[in-house]
Amino acid sequence: MPLWKVYHPAGAYTAQDKKDLSERVTGLYASVPIPQFYVVFIFEEIAEDSCFVGGEPNNNFIRFRVDHIARTLPGPVIREWWVRSLDEIIAPFVKDRGYDWEISIDETPFDLWSLQGEIPPPFESVAEKRWVKENKASPYTPAEKLPVNLVLNPGIADR
Amino acid sequence: MPLWKVYHPAGAYTAQDKKDLSERVTGLYASVPIPQFYVVFIFEEIAEDSCFVGGEPNNNFIRFRVDHIARTLPGPVIREWWVRSLDEIIAPFVKDRGYDWEISIDETPFDLWSLQGEIPPPFESVAEKRWVKENKASPYTPAEKLPVNLVLNPGIADR
Amino acid sequence: MPLWKVYHPAGAYTAQDKKDLSERVTGLYASVPIPQFYVVFIFEEIAEDSCFVGGEPNNNFIRFRVDHIARTLPGPVIREWWVRSLDEIIAPFVKDRGYDWEISIDETPFDLWSLQGEIPPPFESVAEKRWVKENKASPYTPAEKLPVNLVLNPGIADR
Repeated sequence: MPLWKVYHPAGAYTAQDKKDLSERVTGLYASVPIPQFYVVFIFEEIAEDSCFVGGEPNNNFIRFRVDHIARTLPGPVIREWWVRSLDEIIAPFVKDRGYDWEISIDETPFDLWSLQGEIPPPFESVAEKRWVKENKASPYTPAEKLPVNLVLNPGIADR
Repeated sequence: MPLWKVYHPAGAYTAQDKKDLSERVTGLYASVPIPQFYVVFIFEEIAEDSCFVGGEPNNNFIRFRVDHIARTLPGPVIREWWVRSLDEIIAPFVKDRGYDWEISIDETPFDLWSLQGEIPPPFESVAEKRWVKENKASPYTPAEKLPVNLVLNPGIADR
Repeated sequence: MPLWKVYHPAGAYTAQDKKDLSERVTGLYASVPIPQFYVVFIFEEIAEDSCFVGGEPNNNFIRFRVDHIARTLPGPVIREWWVRSLDEIIAPFVKDRGYDWEISIDETPFDLWSLQGEIPPPFESVAEKRWVKENKASPYTPAEKLPVNLVLNPGIADR
C-alpha cells in the first residue's frame, strides 16, 4: 500500500542500507497493523546534475515520495504524528549523513488498487487479518470481508 | 491522460513486449472512448537490490503506477470492473511470467493538464470527438467545447 | 513543494538547459510568493524504446509530472492561467525544439509533508515569510505560525 519512491544521489546507499531503511519503515507500518508486504520501496539514483532545488543544482538531495493507498490518516493529530515519526525513522539515513531531504505523502484511492490480481480486503476485516498473518495476497470469501470485530447489537447496526 | 509508469527488473521486457503491453492497454482506454494518444507508457528498469517488499529484497517485482487525469471512474461497480479488466489485460506480462506485481491508480485534476500546449476539451465534446478521430492535439473553437449530444429541450437545460 | 519530475529522451538537455528550465519555473513560483527552495526538479532520462504514446513508440516525448503540495490553486480562472503560464515558460524547452510534450499536476496533502525534518509553516505566516527571505528551512515558534497580516478587529475574528 505505501509505495515509497526514494530518489537519491548515486552511491548514497549500499544494498544493506536500503534493506535497513525499508525494514525500519516497514516496521512502523506493520505496527498499525497492515500486512508487511503492502510496503514497497523502490530506490532510484538521480543522475549527476539532474536535481535542482530552488533553481540551483543540488547533488546532495534525497527526495522521498510516498503513496498511501490502504489507509487515510484520520485527523490533524495523527497526521502530524505520522510525519514526525517518519522523520525520526529516516534521520539516520539523511540528516545524520549530511544530506538535504524532503518527504511528501499522497493519499490515493483504496478502490483502484490490486495485488497479485487480488483486490485487497476491507480494513480490519477477517481477510486482512489473515493477509497480515500469512504475509501474502490470496483469494478470500465474502464472509472474510466482514470486520474482525463484528458488532450487530440492536441500535448500532447502522454505525 | 492515463500515465502508466511501469517499474520492472532489468531485462523483464523486450521492446516488442513493451509495445504489445502498451497497445493492449491503450485498446481498453480507446474503447471508452478516449483519444488513443492520451495513453502514455513509460517503462523504467529498477536497479538490482533497489526494490523491497515488506522489508525484503524482491528483484522479481513489477509495479504499475497509473495516473488517471481525463476521467474519474464513477461508482464502485465500474471501479471494480476497471481494476479487474486491467489485471486481466496485464496478466500475460506478469502472472503468466512468474513475476510478483501490484497496480494502483491515482485520479488527478482534469483542469491542471495540457497536451502540446493545448488544454484538452471537455469530455464527450465535439472537439474531443475530433481529437479521437485525428488522434492528435490541436486548437479548437468555443463551439467545439459543446457536448456531441447537445440537448436544449425545455426543463432539462439545467441538468 | 512543487516536485517536478521531467521524463525526457537521453541527451535532450544539457546540464545548463536543466538549470535554465528549473530557474525559469522557480521564478514563477517565487512570484506567488513561495520559498524558492520549495521548488524541486528531478530530471530523468527515458531509455530508448521505453516510451509509448497511444501504443506507438515515441522517443521524442517529454513528460512533466508535477506534485503541488504547499498550495491549492483556487478556482477555474487561476487554474487555467497557471497551466497556460507553465506552457509558455516551458515552450523553449519543448515546442521550440520539436519535442512532443505533456504536463499534468497533482495536488497532494499539505499536512503530509516535511522539509529537513521541519513541517512547513502555514501559508502567509510570519514563519513562511522568514523562510522565503532566508531561503531555507529552520525551526519556528508558535507565534510565527500566525498570519503576516493578522486582523483581530471586532466581528472578523471568525473569518
